[in-house]
Amino acid sequence: MEKAFGSVLRCLRQDRGLSQEALGFESGYHRTYISLLERGQKSPSLQTIFNLSKALKIAPADLIKQVEFRTHSLL
Amino acid sequence: MEKAFGSVLRCLRQDRGLSQEALGFESGYHRTYISLLERGQKSPSLQTIFNLSKALKIAPADLIKQVEFRTHSLL
Repeated sequence: MEKAFGSVLRCLRQDRGLSQEALGFESGYHRTYISLLERGQKSPSLQTIFNLSKALKIAPADLIKQVEFRTHSLL
Repeated sequence: MEKAFGSVLRCLRQDRGLSQEALGFESGYHRTYISLLERGQKSPSLQTIFNLSKALKIAPADLIKQVEFRTHSLL
């Protein structure tokens, strides 16, 4: 689950041409926390999911939809 | 945000005719944790969102979509 989220997060961030530092700045988190999330080593809270979605300019539900797909493809 | 999630969670649970205890049993959480979530006093993690969605037989993205709508209507 966290792996799938991390993978989607990295893809979206790179699509937007953002560094981990830039995404961290936009969303209010430290670069190292973004890195931990992308490696699936932290589980984001609901609030974090909404904050990251806003910074990535994607609806939270669309981000979660991608995590669902990724979860299935990682099984 | 947590208030919106809690409100959606309670609606979905009641729609399905489940008690807090029954939803807790289905999803692997204690009844008191379900109660805290419904009152917006806890922020669920990604894993919790997926576990609760499964017990409520709803896609996680659809649950989050409802939270988005609820967030807007609570503003």
